[in-house]
Amino acid sequence: MSKSKRSDTALLIIDVINDLDFPGGEKVLPWALRMVERLGPFAERMRRAGVPVIYVNDNFGYWRSNFRDIYTHCTRRGSRGRDVARALKPRPDDYFILKPKHSAFFATSLVPLLEHLGTKKLILAGLATNLCIFFSAHDAHMHEYKLTVLSDCCAAESDEDHDVALSQLQRFLHVRVCRSDEVGLHAKRRRPTARRSSRPRQTL
Amino acid sequence: MSKSKRSDTALLIIDVINDLDFPGGEKVLPWALRMVERLGPFAERMRRAGVPVIYVNDNFGYWRSNFRDIYTHCTRRGSRGRDVARALKPRPDDYFILKPKHSAFFATSLVPLLEHLGTKKLILAGLATNLCIFFSAHDAHMHEYKLTVLSDCCAAESDEDHDVALSQLQRFLHVRVCRSDEVGLHAKRRRPTARRSSRPRQTL
Amino acid sequence: MSKSKRSDTALLIIDVINDLDFPGGEKVLPWALRMVERLGPFAERMRRAGVPVIYVNDNFGYWRSNFRDIYTHCTRRGSRGRDVARALKPRPDDYFILKPKHSAFFATSLVPLLEHLGTKKLILAGLATNLCIFFSAHDAHMHEYKLTVLSDCCAAESDEDHDVALSQLQRFLHVRVCRSDEVGLHAKRRRPTARRSSRPRQTL
Amino acid sequence: MSKSKRSDTALLIIDVINDLDFPGGEKVLPWALRMVERLGPFAERMRRAGVPVIYVNDNFGYWRSNFRDIYTHCTRRGSRGRDVARALKPRPDDYFILKPKHSAFFATSLVPLLEHLGTKKLILAGLATNLCIFFSAHDAHMHEYKLTVLSDCCAAESDEDHDVALSQLQRFLHVRVCRSDEVGLHAKRRRPTARRSSRPRQTL
Repeated sequence: MSKSKRSDTALLIIDVINDLDFPGGEKVLPWALRMVERLGPFAERMRRAGVPVIYVNDNFGYWRSNFRDIYTHCTRRGSRGRDVARALKPRPDDYFILKPKHSAFFATSLVPLLEHLGTKKLILAGLATNLCIFFSAHDAHMHEYKLTVLSDCCAAESDEDHDVALSQLQRFLHVRVCRSDEVGLHAKRRRPTARRSSRPRQTL
Repeated sequence: MSKSKRSDTALLIIDVINDLDFPGGEKVLPWALRMVERLGPFAERMRRAGVPVIYVNDNFGYWRSNFRDIYTHCTRRGSRGRDVARALKPRPDDYFILKPKHSAFFATSLVPLLEHLGTKKLILAGLATNLCIFFSAHDAHMHEYKLTVLSDCCAAESDEDHDVALSQLQRFLHVRVCRSDEVGLHAKRRRPTARRSSRPRQTL
Repeated sequence: MSKSKRSDTALLIIDVINDLDFPGGEKVLPWALRMVERLGPFAERMRRAGVPVIYVNDNFGYWRSNFRDIYTHCTRRGSRGRDVARALKPRPDDYFILKPKHSAFFATSLVPLLEHLGTKKLILAGLATNLCIFFSAHDAHMHEYKLTVLSDCCAAESDEDHDVALSQLQRFLHVRVCRSDEVGLHAKRRRPTARRSSRPRQTL
Repeated sequence: MSKSKRSDTALLIIDVINDLDFPGGEKVLPWALRMVERLGPFAERMRRAGVPVIYVNDNFGYWRSNFRDIYTHCTRRGSRGRDVARALKPRPDDYFILKPKHSAFFATSLVPLLEHLGTKKLILAGLATNLCIFFSAHDAHMHEYKLTVLSDCCAAESDEDHDVALSQLQRFLHVRVCRSDEVGLHAKRRRPTARRSSRPRQTL
């Protein structure tokens, strides 16, 4: 049944199926809408390249391992995150894991899935840069995955929250922070790329 | 969104949504069909008493957190486990957690769900007594949940496999092993009940 | 053998038995020395009050569960962290847990120890505010412990790193950030205390 | 500081530093003494071959990450397990991990250590076959380590408990069960070896 292709790299898309119904959610929304313009095409490019796309998403208080409940909830009329969720709707071959807490790794089956896929490198994208992306990056680091965070495919409440988080990940965990259009170029010109991305900006 | 009632006790139903498509599955089937006759009414009794019913189920190589995929797969025409799965179909208010490995606790959100519900005592039922029930009982014990395993609501390939597993759990982990019709009586006459069930039988 | 007293609250002291032999360690040292002046007496006050003091400490590449190796290594002549480690040497009744990664919770026996002690509230102190304290606070939050971080008993490379981390914990995880001399006062005047500590400072 | 050699295989020695002060401990003792005669030389052979030897041992209610406390406790005058513990005293280059519960994997740093060492295959030995060896084998299986259990380097209360556990591991988890003198021969004559060990015996 499982015809999963093995892949060294996987794209993790975190909490984009989201009602944005939390204090500050209204500030995240405009950034998230700009994020969609980059993340949608990037995920499509990854799928074409055979890179597994894994949504790891808040369960929104549903504990029923049922993606459709979550998607229906977040795209209902009146949901603040409706347009973001619809634009980034998972495709049939994508993976979908529900998480009960901030980190994509906490009490989820993400590690066994990554071992099943043979994945060693993670590309992180989604919401919010300084919360679930940050928590997940911490755990990915402790699990010794090689990590890239896409500065133009994450969003937070403010530029400052976004930048501070990315800067911490770069300075202290040596995470690669770059834009989505830099992924795939790094084999040839890794150094200049790294330098260009050294001042992460929430300039979506 | 989460209107979960808190409850001291929860019923875990393990791997009953199952295609039984593994070596020995044909031997499990007749026992599983007899198990259904006890487990179906018992689960219903628990629901009426306000006890949460939590299905923890193999993901069958689907890694997509989607209960309906699993249910459709296991109840398709020709699935050996079709009748068992249909008879024990989860109800809308039940919980459903997918597990990637044998234990209900390994790389799943079961512990956060149990903490969310305030659960301290687990009643275990399902398939197979000496595998996923046994692994899950081990983990439940290490997590210090108080544990009851229902001898007439579990099944294995053979009487011997069933009995050996239950006997180990009783002798070494001091798990309470009893029949489903003994649950609820134990407050009044705990000792005699324990003695009666001291020789577990797969006599469904 | 285990005569542990149960306690609602525990003090976690993170990575203070440290050789500070990492890039930036020289910048942490002066802050750490000032931290010692607050943390030493605070830990002593906790011990007298019957609050368990739990050191959770990097294993420094020793994987041998032997505290004395770590202490000897970090207090050897020439170790940058010698004075800090000696001043904060664990007492015989303190607990000592070795951790292999940043978080006090990752691949350690901290959770079973806290359950053994009956602990629900954690007070965090140690090194460094924006790394191991921060990672540990994240995990403590996901495990649903009630959390206080002592602004004058943590240290980082710079004021800014220290403040940014504490501010994130306050704003997004609703962690209580206060000075060590405010602990114990909060029952009576919780609100004002919270307000006073709203601008965390690495002013040790 | 960490000069660990990487190794595909590791020997896990479970709970041999033990006071055997539990109900049934007196029945384990004679088997454990015979186990020592095989396990001592086998561990020595592994050390010479460069295979890491990792003791994973109950913390006996000490939560202080201090191997010497445990060793002193278990080899004190009057400890039932004194001779076993002394005969199998860890060597300076061995690893030592304390575990709070039955499984070597539960709330310990074993997985990060094995990743640090590059280990994929585990050889299991120690006490007791049907408890901590069994729990650890279950977890090793879920973590997808390749597993060998040494039938003549494990012991339990009785022949039957020993045999039933090994038989379960063989039949359902496809664990290799063999005698210590068969390890290393299996490359050349794997099949006959497997057949010879198909009826595990606690014939130490």
